[in-house]
Amino acid sequence: MRLIPRETKFFEMFAEVSANLCEGARLLERILRQSGSDIPQMVQQFKRIEHRGDDMTHAILTRLNQTFITPFDREDIHRLASSLDDVLDFMNAAAVRLVMYKITDPPRAAADLAALVVQQSDELAAAVSLLGKNQNLLDHCVEVNRLENEADVVSRAAIAELFETERDPIRLIKIKELYEVLEAATDKAEDVANVLEAVVLKSA
Amino acid sequence: MRLIPRETKFFEMFAEVSANLCEGARLLERILRQSGSDIPQMVQQFKRIEHRGDDMTHAILTRLNQTFITPFDREDIHRLASSLDDVLDFMNAAAVRLVMYKITDPPRAAADLAALVVQQSDELAAAVSLLGKNQNLLDHCVEVNRLENEADVVSRAAIAELFETERDPIRLIKIKELYEVLEAATDKAEDVANVLEAVVLKSA
Amino acid sequence: MRLIPRETKFFEMFAEVSANLCEGARLLERILRQSGSDIPQMVQQFKRIEHRGDDMTHAILTRLNQTFITPFDREDIHRLASSLDDVLDFMNAAAVRLVMYKITDPPRAAADLAALVVQQSDELAAAVSLLGKNQNLLDHCVEVNRLENEADVVSRAAIAELFETERDPIRLIKIKELYEVLEAATDKAEDVANVLEAVVLKSA
Repeated sequence: MRLIPRETKFFEMFAEVSANLCEGARLLERILRQSGSDIPQMVQQFKRIEHRGDDMTHAILTRLNQTFITPFDREDIHRLASSLDDVLDFMNAAAVRLVMYKITDPPRAAADLAALVVQQSDELAAAVSLLGKNQNLLDHCVEVNRLENEADVVSRAAIAELFETERDPIRLIKIKELYEVLEAATDKAEDVANVLEAVVLKSA
Repeated sequence: MRLIPRETKFFEMFAEVSANLCEGARLLERILRQSGSDIPQMVQQFKRIEHRGDDMTHAILTRLNQTFITPFDREDIHRLASSLDDVLDFMNAAAVRLVMYKITDPPRAAADLAALVVQQSDELAAAVSLLGKNQNLLDHCVEVNRLENEADVVSRAAIAELFETERDPIRLIKIKELYEVLEAATDKAEDVANVLEAVVLKSA
Repeated sequence: MRLIPRETKFFEMFAEVSANLCEGARLLERILRQSGSDIPQMVQQFKRIEHRGDDMTHAILTRLNQTFITPFDREDIHRLASSLDDVLDFMNAAAVRLVMYKITDPPRAAADLAALVVQQSDELAAAVSLLGKNQNLLDHCVEVNRLENEADVVSRAAIAELFETERDPIRLIKIKELYEVLEAATDKAEDVANVLEAVVLKSA
């Protein structure tokens, strides 16, 4: 009788983290489709989402350390919380670079990469909502991996083009790193999908 | 009676992964000793090896999640599979950069680093073949670590020389990154050796 | 009766690792406040501290693999040893770059980042000395995290300024990387604090 609320609580907390991730991804895409003077203020807004994510992750890990019976493998709860947090961290790394490097006209491929992170976040939120039910959860994981492969292709093409066309090495360094941290965000989303997949397979 | 084939199966799967790793390392060294127009086609060939490696890793992890009794620590099987996959991933990162950055004349030190990855892969394959027997396995791990130290020295010297001699910052960025991902591959091989070492020490 | 010495031994070993970390951090700060011809010789001295740290870490992991009953969670001992080692590794990465890139006049912000690592190392040593007692240990972890946030602000400001003022792309690459590896050292110190926090919360 007492176990049900505990189980539910972890699922609720992960649903909140996923919703926050989706909100962050959408804002990041909007920032990157932007150009000009609004960017620093929107990046401030993004940072608030990132801090909220940190607090949520911390709350899950604290609860985990104080909970004896968990709805699924203790290590996997830890991995799931950490890997979801990593996705937001790398999105934040992209947002921060816009300000740090004073990039006022992000290239189109950066926004396209962010759009892939939006799609991955939506798939992850759908997968997380199926935790404990497991039905169809794997389909969402497969889609997250497919989107990661797509991001790989997009970022490689964008970097290759950058090396073809950009003659200013300092601008090249800035934009290359922007692409790389966005691509890393899609890798981290794949890590989340791998954790979810392991949870499902263990309970099968 | 039923457990024996299961145990054997994991050992067989790791032997396959190791053989694939050795094949990839040899091809990568050949690519890097090359110069000119054959490179993109050879990189395509490398990608096939990398995809095969991904499939093999996925098969191990799926089997692991569905297997109740494992020949050694569950976590260590996971770590061994992931770390072997990481070695191939970083080799692939090197191969990809040749095409992405249109490097048609890789510097000699890059091929020398790949030669060290070849040696490490051979040592790892030998170590993996001794899993469950454990005899002399540690000697191969020690050798993998020694080769990593050697790669460290080679890559630092190569990067120092690059900064001394290369005046084109864009070319410098390309070649520096090529050295770094090759050196990262040797680090990942060391991670594999550390997992194997832990497996042996636990069973001692 | 037999367990006490075993427990004590791990605590002693971690105290040694922490003391070595503090010594390394202090030396690194001195190196970075330096300018000129003494640097390569001081970096050699740093490397000896780093090798000593490697040996200490290896001794802990070996003992762990051979010990049946541990004073706290086996995985956490592993994580604590590895994460402490990572801090020293990234400090070493900074020291190595001074020689590899022939940086004879490190910028002030690099020394300031090293000063934050010194403070973090002292806090970690204090926290480690409270393992098994737990009292006030969390306060030191909170402080390590606060210092990491401070390092984040310092390194971002330093990198932003570098992109504003440095016109030589090759010098920019060198100094940017120096800042990044120092900032990574402070991240790794935060990882250590997170492991210590988890140990305390589990035993609460």
